[in-house]
Amino acid sequence: MTATATATSAPSAIRVAIAGASGRMGHMLIDAVLASPDLRLTGALDAAGNPSLGTDAGAFLGKPTGVVVTADVGQALANADVLIDFTRPEGTLAHLAVAAEKGVGVVIGTTGFSDAQKAQIAQAAEKTAVVFSPNMSVGVNVTFKLLEMAAKALQDGGYDIEIIEAHHKHKVDAPSGTALKMGEVIAAAQGTKLADRAVYERYGDTGARVDGSIGFATVRGGDIVGDHTVLFAGDGERIEIAHKSSSRAGYAKGSLRAARYLAQHKRGLHSMYDVLGLNS
Amino acid sequence: MTATATATSAPSAIRVAIAGASGRMGHMLIDAVLASPDLRLTGALDAAGNPSLGTDAGAFLGKPTGVVVTADVGQALANADVLIDFTRPEGTLAHLAVAAEKGVGVVIGTTGFSDAQKAQIAQAAEKTAVVFSPNMSVGVNVTFKLLEMAAKALQDGGYDIEIIEAHHKHKVDAPSGTALKMGEVIAAAQGTKLADRAVYERYGDTGARVDGSIGFATVRGGDIVGDHTVLFAGDGERIEIAHKSSSRAGYAKGSLRAARYLAQHKRGLHSMYDVLGLNS
Amino acid sequence: MTATATATSAPSAIRVAIAGASGRMGHMLIDAVLASPDLRLTGALDAAGNPSLGTDAGAFLGKPTGVVVTADVGQALANADVLIDFTRPEGTLAHLAVAAEKGVGVVIGTTGFSDAQKAQIAQAAEKTAVVFSPNMSVGVNVTFKLLEMAAKALQDGGYDIEIIEAHHKHKVDAPSGTALKMGEVIAAAQGTKLADRAVYERYGDTGARVDGSIGFATVRGGDIVGDHTVLFAGDGERIEIAHKSSSRAGYAKGSLRAARYLAQHKRGLHSMYDVLGLNS
Amino acid sequence: MTATATATSAPSAIRVAIAGASGRMGHMLIDAVLASPDLRLTGALDAAGNPSLGTDAGAFLGKPTGVVVTADVGQALANADVLIDFTRPEGTLAHLAVAAEKGVGVVIGTTGFSDAQKAQIAQAAEKTAVVFSPNMSVGVNVTFKLLEMAAKALQDGGYDIEIIEAHHKHKVDAPSGTALKMGEVIAAAQGTKLADRAVYERYGDTGARVDGSIGFATVRGGDIVGDHTVLFAGDGERIEIAHKSSSRAGYAKGSLRAARYLAQHKRGLHSMYDVLGLNS
Repeated sequence: MTATATATSAPSAIRVAIAGASGRMGHMLIDAVLASPDLRLTGALDAAGNPSLGTDAGAFLGKPTGVVVTADVGQALANADVLIDFTRPEGTLAHLAVAAEKGVGVVIGTTGFSDAQKAQIAQAAEKTAVVFSPNMSVGVNVTFKLLEMAAKALQDGGYDIEIIEAHHKHKVDAPSGTALKMGEVIAAAQGTKLADRAVYERYGDTGARVDGSIGFATVRGGDIVGDHTVLFAGDGERIEIAHKSSSRAGYAKGSLRAARYLAQHKRGLHSMYDVLGLNS
Repeated sequence: MTATATATSAPSAIRVAIAGASGRMGHMLIDAVLASPDLRLTGALDAAGNPSLGTDAGAFLGKPTGVVVTADVGQALANADVLIDFTRPEGTLAHLAVAAEKGVGVVIGTTGFSDAQKAQIAQAAEKTAVVFSPNMSVGVNVTFKLLEMAAKALQDGGYDIEIIEAHHKHKVDAPSGTALKMGEVIAAAQGTKLADRAVYERYGDTGARVDGSIGFATVRGGDIVGDHTVLFAGDGERIEIAHKSSSRAGYAKGSLRAARYLAQHKRGLHSMYDVLGLNS
Repeated sequence: MTATATATSAPSAIRVAIAGASGRMGHMLIDAVLASPDLRLTGALDAAGNPSLGTDAGAFLGKPTGVVVTADVGQALANADVLIDFTRPEGTLAHLAVAAEKGVGVVIGTTGFSDAQKAQIAQAAEKTAVVFSPNMSVGVNVTFKLLEMAAKALQDGGYDIEIIEAHHKHKVDAPSGTALKMGEVIAAAQGTKLADRAVYERYGDTGARVDGSIGFATVRGGDIVGDHTVLFAGDGERIEIAHKSSSRAGYAKGSLRAARYLAQHKRGLHSMYDVLGLNS
Repeated sequence: MTATATATSAPSAIRVAIAGASGRMGHMLIDAVLASPDLRLTGALDAAGNPSLGTDAGAFLGKPTGVVVTADVGQALANADVLIDFTRPEGTLAHLAVAAEKGVGVVIGTTGFSDAQKAQIAQAAEKTAVVFSPNMSVGVNVTFKLLEMAAKALQDGGYDIEIIEAHHKHKVDAPSGTALKMGEVIAAAQGTKLADRAVYERYGDTGARVDGSIGFATVRGGDIVGDHTVLFAGDGERIEIAHKSSSRAGYAKGSLRAARYLAQHKRGLHSMYDVLGLNS
């Protein structure tokens, strides 16, 4: 998602601040905001000591934005309607506390929160509006919903379910969190638990496939960002539902949708399912 | 879907008659019924003059069924709860008329009816229960539903929609009827008409893709039964929803589900969406 | 591969006998021979006690061929140039012994021979021409060759190799024999052994991918005949080489090519690589 | 292909200059050179007037390299063994003239040369070593070779050939140059011409597939960098050979291999087939 030109934002544009402004995800978010006429960049936050502090937030694009990167949360949020934050749990919680006081909405793309930290998020959401989801990609969330529907519709028809995922060679765990979440969504849609159905490995004398199992297959190689395919294999036919990422642009795009959604909400803890209207 | 053993049907089994009993689809249906303990084959119909008349309906499998192929509709339906009919429009309508008198449910897998003929079906459905759908495959119908949901959820997100289909080398038209139907389902879900959005060919100086268009790509080769993939291509991510047929078994399987559904209904015109509970 | 009409074979047609004539593979072979003008069915063999003995070998197609199924090997081979045999090791070896005496070529599609039995085949091949390969499909053999080439060309370029295979739910072992053979072909092409590189399972804390490993991923479901995909994943690009079977027709087709090849050879042990000219 | 750390180049490292040093491809090349211990960045060239002139060539990465971007070709090549050039035809030819005088090898990734310009390249290659190919990606070149082999091996076997390509929504022509080149490679391998076999569009009453034709199917959407799949569809089986790009990293990687190859050659016009040893 590359902005070929900087959009001139409308007077009514939603005012957006970006945390982690000089990181990879921060750059992608700034690029995306600058390309959106209905959004305006008004704040850029990074950690104390970051070399980017004091420079223009658009310098990496060669586009002066007039917004200077700061480590002062209050300053970064001074003119913001929404903060988008893909940083670390501790940083995000600190930013969230200030945002809650100011009534600035927060889109949280950070992962790895403990249960206690999640409770803090819920508490802050009583004061301001928050979007918090395990995955900010529109496509991944829609895929979860599609899987839920397919799992229900195909439940009694003798369809075997398999989840195949592929990621880059540096990934250290298997299957991916998104693959596991897919399995959970499917199992729940069929009134079951994934733990009772999952088959994570197959090698040697496996015996015939156990009816009702959900199989996982893992592929690792190159710089694959993330492919997930769910197979419903029946007699003489297959349905495949796949999500394939080629960059982090999908996260940026989902975050912007969440920001627009937050501009319509004063408080409360919302998910990407809410943002995308997938809860019906 | 090959019956490795003949199931012994339960006393409460649904009694099924098959039209076109000695054709390819008839054979597949008989094989499927014999493999289902909750169904019992009680009638086998074929056209006058067919060499199979008077032989056992299971002869092609080497399994005597005690059911003799007949051209007499009344006889074929005498002990049936449901007739499954994949023949020709005229034959199907003649069978349907008798079935309606007797209160036998009818699963119609025949295609190519005129509007007047469709009206006849609707009329017969006032007397008996009928399942009638353009495609009897469970998988294809679920895929239509998935596409409807995806088209709605991804409507405002900048996702480009493309439909790719592959069929065997003998197919004489493009795109396939199922691909077109997919396009119609998507366009309708987004409150539009396919005719206003479809792009069927691309060659030479095409110019950039027109926003909102729905592209079709056609592949022909070998003995491919039928693959359909719908691509929703966004920034940095794609969702793909695919249905792949490897045999006609999916039609047989869907027909059996329709037969079971009809055993619960006295009259009315039903679709595979009804059978599969996809209308919610 | 369905013969829509029976070809009339040329006077110079190669005369073919089929072993296991009333089995599934036998039927497919007979259908394929009858559809080939350059081949003529002259013998049909099945085991003593088989109910098909004494019936016409084309009865299952409704096409009288004038060839009666027999359990007498000598009779089945009396007018044959080539025997095609997809039966069991013991049967095949017995047929081979007679064929070697008569100078009838033999295409062996049977699998599961012991080393001692393979030695018997080699010995028989001193008297008559034999084609013997682990897989008779043209496509699978060409795929092996493609993998060999790709493995060499991509050896030093940082491409990670993964083999993904999918089969029906009844398959009791993993990975498939063909997948393993693919791994062996690749490893050998790179001057290595598969055993030193294979990773058959990934679950939990796997750590980053080990450089040079060859990963396997196994999918099981429905009635998938057999899909194999080999991925060469590099930086910013992937090459995929896939073979997908939808029926046993590929084996029949490969066997016919082997039969034509044998008509040009008097003796010797040949492989499908020889038949297909892939040894260059 | 992101350099997570800057490699320290060996004393014997090949000295590389990059043309178009401040463009997207230039950045990717500089990043790749800095990550390779056997290469050393010694020159960075850009057009007069470019804002990057006088700045450090690694500034965009936050990595000072000591190499300053210059518009003076002689200066940029002063300490170089090889120049990698993905710019415009006129610029490339001007750089090439200087490189030829100095005996600096040149990797040309620029496209769009006229026949007269190609003759100039050939002439320069009498004085210095040049690698010039329509596509610098290792994967694409290996894929061409695989297609050549498959096309020969499957020539007489009744395999229908189809080429499916997908690119981003901004692409203005169809099919892609790479897809057309694939068709040409296949046609030539079978002793034919693509023009006699190509079918670029299918819509409406197409009739059955013409034997021997090569079909093209075009998909456009999102930001797809470039996917190409060639299908060989036979009876009961398919072979698919696919190349999928997710970034320009494959071009950078291929260029570096070409640079290493040139370090071993004094003069002559070489192709990526030569670099990759694919001419056997």
